[in-house]
This record gives sequence, structure tokens and C-alpha cells, in this order.
Amino acid sequence: MRIDRREANQIRSTKITRGFQKNPAGSALIEMGNTKVLCSASVEDRVPHFLKGAGHGWVTAEYSMLPGASNPRVQREILRPNGRSQEIQRLIGRALRSVVNLEALGERTITLDCDVLHADGGTRTASITGAFVALVEACDTFYEKGKIFPVQDFVSAISVGIDQNGDAILDLCYEEDSNAIVDCNVAKTGLGKYVEIQGTGEKRPFTRAELDSMLELADLGIDELISLQKDILGGELVWKVGRIG
Amino acid sequence: MRIDRREANQIRSTKITRGFQKNPAGSALIEMGNTKVLCSASVEDRVPHFLKGAGHGWVTAEYSMLPGASNPRVQREILRPNGRSQEIQRLIGRALRSVVNLEALGERTITLDCDVLHADGGTRTASITGAFVALVEACDTFYEKGKIFPVQDFVSAISVGIDQNGDAILDLCYEEDSNAIVDCNVAKTGLGKYVEIQGTGEKRPFTRAELDSMLELADLGIDELISLQKDILGGELVWKVGRIG
Amino acid sequence: MRIDRREANQIRSTKITRGFQKNPAGSALIEMGNTKVLCSASVEDRVPHFLKGAGHGWVTAEYSMLPGASNPRVQREILRPNGRSQEIQRLIGRALRSVVNLEALGERTITLDCDVLHADGGTRTASITGAFVALVEACDTFYEKGKIFPVQDFVSAISVGIDQNGDAILDLCYEEDSNAIVDCNVAKTGLGKYVEIQGTGEKRPFTRAELDSMLELADLGIDELISLQKDILGGELVWKVGRIG
Amino acid sequence: MRIDRREANQIRSTKITRGFQKNPAGSALIEMGNTKVLCSASVEDRVPHFLKGAGHGWVTAEYSMLPGASNPRVQREILRPNGRSQEIQRLIGRALRSVVNLEALGERTITLDCDVLHADGGTRTASITGAFVALVEACDTFYEKGKIFPVQDFVSAISVGIDQNGDAILDLCYEEDSNAIVDCNVAKTGLGKYVEIQGTGEKRPFTRAELDSMLELADLGIDELISLQKDILGGELVWKVGRIG
Amino acid sequence: MRIDRREANQIRSTKITRGFQKNPAGSALIEMGNTKVLCSASVEDRVPHFLKGAGHGWVTAEYSMLPGASNPRVQREILRPNGRSQEIQRLIGRALRSVVNLEALGERTITLDCDVLHADGGTRTASITGAFVALVEACDTFYEKGKIFPVQDFVSAISVGIDQNGDAILDLCYEEDSNAIVDCNVAKTGLGKYVEIQGTGEKRPFTRAELDSMLELADLGIDELISLQKDILGGELVWKVGRIG
Amino acid sequence: MRIDRREANQIRSTKITRGFQKNPAGSALIEMGNTKVLCSASVEDRVPHFLKGAGHGWVTAEYSMLPGASNPRVQREILRPNGRSQEIQRLIGRALRSVVNLEALGERTITLDCDVLHADGGTRTASITGAFVALVEACDTFYEKGKIFPVQDFVSAISVGIDQNGDAILDLCYEEDSNAIVDCNVAKTGLGKYVEIQGTGEKRPFTRAELDSMLELADLGIDELISLQKDILGGELVWKVGRIG
Repeated sequence: MRIDRREANQIRSTKITRGFQKNPAGSALIEMGNTKVLCSASVEDRVPHFLKGAGHGWVTAEYSMLPGASNPRVQREILRPNGRSQEIQRLIGRALRSVVNLEALGERTITLDCDVLHADGGTRTASITGAFVALVEACDTFYEKGKIFPVQDFVSAISVGIDQNGDAILDLCYEEDSNAIVDCNVAKTGLGKYVEIQGTGEKRPFTRAELDSMLELADLGIDELISLQKDILGGELVWKVGRIG
Repeated sequence: MRIDRREANQIRSTKITRGFQKNPAGSALIEMGNTKVLCSASVEDRVPHFLKGAGHGWVTAEYSMLPGASNPRVQREILRPNGRSQEIQRLIGRALRSVVNLEALGERTITLDCDVLHADGGTRTASITGAFVALVEACDTFYEKGKIFPVQDFVSAISVGIDQNGDAILDLCYEEDSNAIVDCNVAKTGLGKYVEIQGTGEKRPFTRAELDSMLELADLGIDELISLQKDILGGELVWKVGRIG
Repeated sequence: MRIDRREANQIRSTKITRGFQKNPAGSALIEMGNTKVLCSASVEDRVPHFLKGAGHGWVTAEYSMLPGASNPRVQREILRPNGRSQEIQRLIGRALRSVVNLEALGERTITLDCDVLHADGGTRTASITGAFVALVEACDTFYEKGKIFPVQDFVSAISVGIDQNGDAILDLCYEEDSNAIVDCNVAKTGLGKYVEIQGTGEKRPFTRAELDSMLELADLGIDELISLQKDILGGELVWKVGRIG
Repeated sequence: MRIDRREANQIRSTKITRGFQKNPAGSALIEMGNTKVLCSASVEDRVPHFLKGAGHGWVTAEYSMLPGASNPRVQREILRPNGRSQEIQRLIGRALRSVVNLEALGERTITLDCDVLHADGGTRTASITGAFVALVEACDTFYEKGKIFPVQDFVSAISVGIDQNGDAILDLCYEEDSNAIVDCNVAKTGLGKYVEIQGTGEKRPFTRAELDSMLELADLGIDELISLQKDILGGELVWKVGRIG
Repeated sequence: MRIDRREANQIRSTKITRGFQKNPAGSALIEMGNTKVLCSASVEDRVPHFLKGAGHGWVTAEYSMLPGASNPRVQREILRPNGRSQEIQRLIGRALRSVVNLEALGERTITLDCDVLHADGGTRTASITGAFVALVEACDTFYEKGKIFPVQDFVSAISVGIDQNGDAILDLCYEEDSNAIVDCNVAKTGLGKYVEIQGTGEKRPFTRAELDSMLELADLGIDELISLQKDILGGELVWKVGRIG
Repeated sequence: MRIDRREANQIRSTKITRGFQKNPAGSALIEMGNTKVLCSASVEDRVPHFLKGAGHGWVTAEYSMLPGASNPRVQREILRPNGRSQEIQRLIGRALRSVVNLEALGERTITLDCDVLHADGGTRTASITGAFVALVEACDTFYEKGKIFPVQDFVSAISVGIDQNGDAILDLCYEEDSNAIVDCNVAKTGLGKYVEIQGTGEKRPFTRAELDSMLELADLGIDELISLQKDILGGELVWKVGRIG
């Protein structure tokens, strides 16, 4: 039995709220257990310097923790850019771009801001799952019927790990994460393919068998999260994802 | 009649939620109309360099806007410290310190983080009003009965202005603020004294009579906000504010 | 009697020297007692990014203290931008813009540099009063007869406060400022209207009556400073201020 | 046949030179094909702030590219910290720490500097393989006979990928890497366990079968590299790795 | 005849004013022609990190130009440290340290701030000549009779060059400096020895004969400047320079 | 006899290797004794902002030390720009520009990167000598027959000094440099003219006679280095240097 009484293969209670912020083109507040991440998607009609004239768009992400999201308080990153945040925002950007048709985006940049309001483990994977919802909303604001919808598949992410007893567990909370022997983040698409696997032996190296059992649990968790994304987006937006005309 | 159908002397619908974040010692989400600011108070058992050995504590504030809080998106302040934010966080810090007995705080620093989740005017004054609630909660975590309670009075703040017709109005929303002739932020204590008055002629200079009519409206608004702070904190905490033993 | 033997309503001996620097379009060295601020106004034939194509100009200010201006030595702000300086330069910029017709400026930017050579209280208000003189000189370098003169009114600023005895005093020197209960900076135009009021309860909150007595003293001081600005600028430039053709 | 005429399961010609730099405690120049990385290990008799008093040491890494290492020239990271470099140096640090007994290190910090002199793909994995050699040399400078040797196992890393034909390939050069569908970096220990797996679908998501075939190739490559590390270190140092007394 | 009607071997009219700033331990305003540099010397009772426990002190310099000192306006160096300024302040520091007995200074740091109020060529050499006066004043504030006076010799500096006609000239003003073929800065002591020679072929390389003729002129200029320093400091301070008990 | 058994007028064993890096347009690894500097020359088809439209090109230099180049380890300059490096790279840039015809360069920028792999004294002068070779190679990549070759003369540099016995010595190694009384860097052209002389009295001021004896030694060293540059470049490139059609 896990510290919060879940089964090894059980994700935390998860909720996605649309429209928490009214200003951005897309907005989703994702809560997985006590982890809360506010995701917004902003659209600009221009592309970064390195894409000028390329005829297609870009999707980028920024990730940050509010000072009060953790205990002890997290220092703001002003004048002290943070390696961990940069690594996470690069991961979020890659994961979301993997399901986007950048040509269909046109000469637009979508910035996905993932701000952690409360941290209890799994903030980077929750950011991917929540930012996907904001991204679909944002693309819908400029989508013209009959065209290719920029988002071509679903994507969700979850953490898996090996606990101190050597057992694989799904969706680690902060306390489990701190004690885990191995920590692995997995992002998969609606078609069941991997977008990203990042496994790290935190306390000791790990075997191939341990990798296999973690990937199995990740499949379960990601299926649940993609179902939830579909429920939250509703029929019309689900129907648009993957449209090619 | 104002654009949101309020009377000139009417504040927006205001709500303060305690405990939105579980990690910090104090936490309050304040919503005034569409403006939402998440305020947290974190306590550290040490003081800044310039107070080493002085035998008393410090209260400081940090203010920031989430990128999705406004439209167009607000750029993060990494490597580009922002004059407006610095000015606002200095104001918040001064206003809250004005009601704190720093000796009673002991060798502690309380950091008030005010992060704007949604901006629709009056974010700096809402930050003061909300941060006060988080501050009282935080002081309660280390308060020992029979001692002086560090928070000695209530403090709230509100914006007032002169609109395009030359009329004084209370608690300006973003659209009113953008068009206002004069903009004035006022912070007052529970005993009805001024902590801060900052009046600026945005579109033209203003007269003494205009100042007087704005200060009158501010009194009304601040009375309402202090009542709300008392309701939210509840009898026991209200009783502690101002205790000297 | 005050520490420097002035009356409560008496400003310090004040002198403005034009032309201390030969390179900038406008230059004024203002001395109020021991406070010395070197103000220069530089003109560029372009506008900041956010005004491109708007058809009018901009006035901005920068404020800094020389390391030797104070004791102990003031650290230079390289790599450590300073909240206090940013707040002050925003104030100076707003105050001067309030008397400028930005359309009449054309697509020009005027930068007002206020560098404190010696600090003895009231440096931000002295900066406003001195920078005004440099601004008028600078506008005169490109003014064409028969057009609207960009500077449309006079503006001066002064500090007022409540001392330890509870009395209102005018134009605080550093020692008075350090001990003041309340500190208030006021900027007014030649037509007697307020451009900015910033009152702060430094040691305790203050009453409406105290505010009133401070504003009364400020009126006296500002009248004197505007007279001095007129004397220094001389008839021809005074005649141009406010010209609309 | 691959562009450089290698078989799918063949690594590039690899050479490790010890002692290229004379000043650091450990030094290795690793060349894999045209990729050249200069790795040095410096020892300091103190630990980072967060380990003060913990009674054990730390291993950290820094990674950078010389401007002339690539074409076009790489800009230096002065005042512009680079997310990619930070991500890579965090990876190198984790991989090397996984085989170090930090208690046996004592209160020392070893900094592994990996500077890319010439870049042709696989610089981050070559950095891990080369830095290992410098790390062993550095530990030998303070190792006392009969104690636990700080380095307890070997570690090497290699890149694998899926090429445009859908085939798994080992040790990608720059041109292969640019065109790869999937890119995966794997670090394993001498005991055949995973320290890190980072797989990314660069051009499209990937299947479980593709992951399996990449991991198989990685095993081959890492075995070869660990053999090379042993040859280069020589009998006495190989004998020390893993010693527990 | 030179553009300002001087002889080739004639320095500009030079004036040094003591006490322009009242706060620092030493203060000198040096004017050479239109070049004006405000030099201050501040004393701190601690030494930089690298001298902790060494039992002697340090002398360091900072150099900056006020924005209005030049035309066009000079941008402040906030967040953009300037190679030229750093090079100059390192030169000033070295030149002044060359005449200081650091042991006699005790565990103190003297910071020489040289702020250019008006720039017309030769600001770095004027800074050395002026900072010397401030340095002597500052040392006098803590000198105890019978001890070694920290300043052991005089030092002054001047620029020399080769003009467009191939003639050596002394103390170049800005216009001469811009057109000079060769530019050379020389610092010498009261005993006639070189502290620093920095010669640069700006428009073309130069011969040994040209070097010789420039050094000859520098001797004349430095003799005059050291006489002036002595006049300004007055008998008592001149008597202290070089005292060894 | 010197510590490394050289005569006073003898340079260290010197070797220049072309083509160490394959990506840049020019590349030279210079080794003088144990000092090793990797020099690369990169060409861009654009000019810095201040030369836009001027119709000619620019040559600039960047200098840095690898962390492992020295003992103790050198900290990277990220977020901490280093005055010494800036001063050195300005010197390198000036020295190389002195032999370049910027018009013949066309609208191109050549960046000379000098990265110190191993430091044992004389890194700045070795950088000039090595960067010259890379510069010639780089110019050859775009030179069209019959035009003016951008490099018009040879340039080399060397250090000279006065040792503890008061004797002039040539090409100081690190240990000699640390103990030298006077330190002087000299750059000269193939035609025997000075490009730069920087002499500093490190431990005491120096006489004119000492300067003369140092300059004499520098002549010897620079002649040898220019011979070496010619050998390394080979007949065809030597023939191009100085071509005017």
C-alpha cells in the first residue's frame, strides 16, 4: 500500500478546469492530487528569428514555480536562470510540438506557460497534459473550417518509478519521488507511440526488467489521462484534433 | 453609470479564499471582479544582512504577473528586471510593515509573494489587501500566547481615480484605469490612518478638490475591505491582531 | 527651530547653473543646500519601439547616484539594478511628461539624466526641478518659430514631512528625512495643479489633517522653485513655455 | 550502408588521450570520429553550500562548446546562459555521480569540465565517457590505500537512433543526427545497468519495438567503450575502481 | 599650431579642486581643458576576499562616464558591462597601487571612483592624476604620526601621440585624439620612473624614433602635473607623501 | 641561467599546427613551451551595427581560458564578465586589425577566437601570433585573384620583462611572470614597426634604460616568430600577404 493508499498502478485524482484565466487564447488548470499547474496558451502572429520566412509556425513552452508552490519557498528566477526549469520547458515544448503540424499553424507562435501553483510531484508531466488542453483551445481560436487542424494527435505524460521495495509505481507524489530508486517520465500520443522517455537511476542504476515494468504502468496512466483530456475538451474539439481538412 | 454598471462609490464583488496553497505559512487568493492575486506568506528564521544582530525581524514583498494574466501575454522578468514590478513590491512591503511590530516578529523574515493570476486593474491594491490575510495566518504559526502579536492593526488598499467626465470613481477596472485622467492608490489602517497615498495625473494634472473627492471614496472602499478581511480571518485571528500580551 | 536653523516653511538655499556640461542639448546643475544633482537632456531623432509610427515623441528619465555622493559609498548598479533608482526615474519621467505636448515633440526621444553628485535629502524632487530647466533648453534646440513649444507648463517638486514633534516641515535635509514620521513628495505645475503626490507613513500612519498641513507647505516651496526656474531660464525661454503657435 | 560507410552496429573510431592538460588532477581528450571533447577533473577541498557538514562530497559537471567547434560559429554563453548546455551538464553530472561513493569522496568537490573542441554529433555521450577517465585519475590523486575508492563502477554513454529508413543505428555523427527520426542517449555501468535513458521522437513518435532495437545497439556500443576505458586507464587504476578497502 | 592654439609640448590649462564632494574621505575635481573628472576616495575597514588575513590593504578603482559627458549620449552600463571602462579602471588601479605601501594601509580597501562629468580626451590619464589627490586626502584621515604613510611617491599620467603630420604632441584633446596616428598613455612617479606605458598604433604602426619623441614630451607634461599636485595638496600633505616614520 | 635553462634572449620551443579544428575558416593551435592556445577565425557576411553601410569589414577577437587550463581551476565567465579577458581580447583585436585592410575585407566580420587550453605565461601574445595564421587562412577562403589581399603585413607578439635580478628576459613562462619586476607585451609587424607596447611596473616602477633593454629583446623574439609564421603558412599564402592586386 502506498503512502496515500493508492494501488501501484493507480493515478491520483485528476481534474482539468478550462477557462481559469480569461485573457489567453487557451487556459487550463490541471490538478493531480495536490499538484496544481496553471497552463495558458498565447498566440502571436509572428515567428522566432530562426524561422523567418520558413512559412510555418512554432510552439514553445515556459515553466516556472510560484514561490509559494513549495516548502521551503522557491526563489524567483530573476537574474538567476535555473537549469532545472530550462530543462523542463524544453521537454514540454518538444512533447507538444510532436503532435503539431507546424505548417498548418501558419506564421504563428504559440507560447505555453506552465506555472506551478502547488507542487506535490509530477509537475512536468502534469504540465504536458494540461498544456495540451490549452493548446487545442488556442488553435481553435484561429482555425478555419476545411483546413488542417494544427493539433494532429493527443499527448499526455506521466511519471513512473521504482520504489524502495523495488516495485514499479505510477504517478509519484512528492514524498514517493524523494525516496524513489528510479524515476522515469514518459510522454505518449493518442496512437500509443512514445514522444519522450527519460529514465534516471536516482539512487542506483536499474535493469532492463525494471524499465519494462515501468513502461507498462505508464501505458495505463496515459490512457486514463487522454480519456480525461477528451472528456474535458468535449466532442467538437475532440473531433477537430487530427482533422486534415 | 460605469461600464460594469457599478455606482461611482461601489467596489467590485470581492472574495478572499484562505488555504489555496498548502505549503506556505499563510495563503490567500483574493478576487476583486476579474482581478485574481494569489498571496502567500513564507517565514524564514533569519533576517537580511542589514538587520543582522538588530534583534528584530523584517517583512518584504515580491510581486509578479503570470504571463497569461494579461492580453497580450506578459513576458517573464528573467534577466530583465522590471521597474514597474519593483516599484509595486516596494509599495506592498511598506504598506504591510506599517502595521507590523518588527520586534515582536523576532529574528524572522516574512516574504509576501503576490502573483497576479488574472489582471483587470487594481492588482497592487488587491495584493496589499490579500497579503494582509496571509500575513496574519503566517504570524499565527509561531505566535506564543501572552506575547505581542506581530500584526498590530489592519491594513487594506484600494484605487480611486477621476474618470473622463471629471467624476471621482472607486476601484477602477482595467478599462476604466486605461482611460482615467487621474489615478490614485490609497492604503489605510483599521484605525483610519493613511499608510500610503500615491496620486498621479495620468492625462492631466489635478486639483485639490479632485484629490479630496478621491480620498473620500477611498475611505468607503477601505472600510468595506477591512470588514471583509475580518470576516475571512474569523474571531480568533481578529482578536489576535493588535494584541500586546 | 530645525537642525539647520530654518523655519518650518523655509526651503534650503537653491541655485541652478545652466551649461555645466557642454555636450548635451540641455544641462542644469541644481544645488539645494548640500544636495547637488547634475541634470542633462539629450535629444535623439527616434522613438522607443512601442511608439514606432505613432507620430509623437517620448520623454524618459534615468536617475543614479555617484558612488561618492553618499557616505558610506554607494555601490554602482552594474549587474545589480536597483529598485529605488527605478522607482525614482519612473517618477521623474512621469512628472516631466505631464507638462510636455508629445505631438509637438515630433518623433524624438528626450532622455533626462539626473546624476546625484552629492546627496543630502530631496534628490528625487531636486531632479525634477533641475531636469525641467534642461528639458526647456533641449526643446529650444529644435523648436521652430510659430509651432507649438513642446513644454506647455512649468513643473517643480519638493519634499514635505512630519517631524518627530508632529510638525509639518518643508524641504527635508538627509538628517530630517531619516527621522521623519511621514515623508511626502509633491510635484505641481505652474498653474498650481498636482502632477504627483506620494505620501508614506515611514514611522507611523498619518491623519488627514497631517496630509493637509503638508500639502500647504508644499505649495509655498513649489511657488519659490518655479520663480527660480523662471529667473534662470530668462525672458525668452519663459515666453516660449506654453506657446501654442 | 551509412554515410561514413559504417555498419548499423558499429561505433566510430575512438581514442582517449590522458594528460592533454597538465594542470588539472585528471585530464582526458576523447575523440569519437571527428568529435573531440577535452575533459578535465578538478578537485577542491570544500563542498557546495547545500552539503555543508553532511560529511560527504559532490561531483558536478560543466559543458560548453568552443566557438570554433561548429559551423556556423557558436556564440559564447556570456550573459546568455544556454538551456541546452545546462541540460547536458546536468546529465553528465548525474551519470558520473551514479558510480561514485560520495562518502568515500570526503568533503571534496570534483568538477568535470567538458569542453567541445570539435563537434560532429554525440558530444554529450562522449563527454560522459571521457569525463569518467578524468574522474578516476582525479580520485587517484588523493586516494589512500586500504580505503574505499570513490569510483565504484565504470560508466560510458552512447547515442542511438532510428534513421530515415526506420532502421536503428549506433553512434550517430552530426549528419545522421540531423536527419534521425528518433534520437536516444543511453548511459550504462560496467555491471550492465542503466544510469540514464533519454529517448526523443524528433521527427515522429516511436514504437516500443523501435525502443527495444535501439537499446540492443546501445549495449554493444557501451561494452566497447568500457573496454576502451579499461585499456586507457591501465591495470592499476582499473583494479582500484570498485575497491572497498 | 594645434587646433586649440597650443604648442606641441604644451598641456591644457589644468585645475584640481579639493572637497567638491563632502562625503568621501578624499575628493578631487580635475579639469584639463574641457575634460572634467570627479574623483573620490572611499575607505572601508575590510579587504577583498583574496586578501583575507594577508595583513595588508588594497587600492581599487572604478571608472565611468556620465551619460551627458559626451555627444552622442553615453548609455549607462547597467546590465551591459563595458570592456573599455573595465580596461581603464584596471589601469587606474595599477597606477595608484604602484605608489602605495599596502602593508602601511593595514586591512583597509580604498576605492577610487573616477566619474567623467565632461569628456574631451585624456579622461583616463586625468583620472590617475586627480585620483592621486583624493587618495592622499583619504590616507590622511587614518594616518597616525610616526607610522609609514601609505602613499610613498607621487604619480601622474598624461597622453601623448603622433598627429597626422607625423609630429609628436602632448595632452591630446578629443579632436586630436580622434585623428591621431599613434596614441600613447604614460604614467610616471615623482622619482621619474615609469609605472605604465601603453602605446597603440591607431592608424598605422609606429617606429622606435616616434616612441622616443613621445616619451620625451610625456616627461615634460608629467613634471608639470606633479608640480600642480604638490601645490594643491599643500606643504603638510606633501611632506607626508613618502614618510617612513 | 633561467628556471627552464633558457638564455635571457631565447624564446621557448614554439609550434603552430594548422587545421586542428575543421569547421572554422581558419584554425591554428599555437604551443609556446607549455602554453597552448587554440585560435580560430570565423567569417560572417555582415558587419556590426556601427559599420552598417560603411562599405568595409571588421576584425574582432574573443579570448577565454578553459577551466582546466590553469591550477587552481578557472571559473567560467557566465554571468560574470571578466575585466582581464575583455582587456586581452581588445588588445588582440587591435593588433590584428593593424595589418588588415578593412576595405579589402568587404562587408564581412572575422571573429578570432583564442581559447587557452593550457596556460603557462604569455597567453595573450601567443594568441596574437597564432590568430594571425588563422586570419590569413580565413581571408584565403574568399580572396579573389587580382584583388587586394585583406592581410597586408605580418604581426607577432611576445612578452618581455625585468626579472628579480634586474635583468631583461624574453618570453616569460608563468613562474617568471609571477616574479617579474616589470612586465611588457610588444606586438610588431613584419616591417619592424610597433603595433602595441604595454609596459607595467608590477613590483616597482622602471627606468628608461630598462625599457630600452626590453624592447631590444622583443625585436629578437618577434623576428623568430614571424619566420615561424612564414614557414607554417607556406609559400603561396606568404606571397598573398601584402598583395595589392
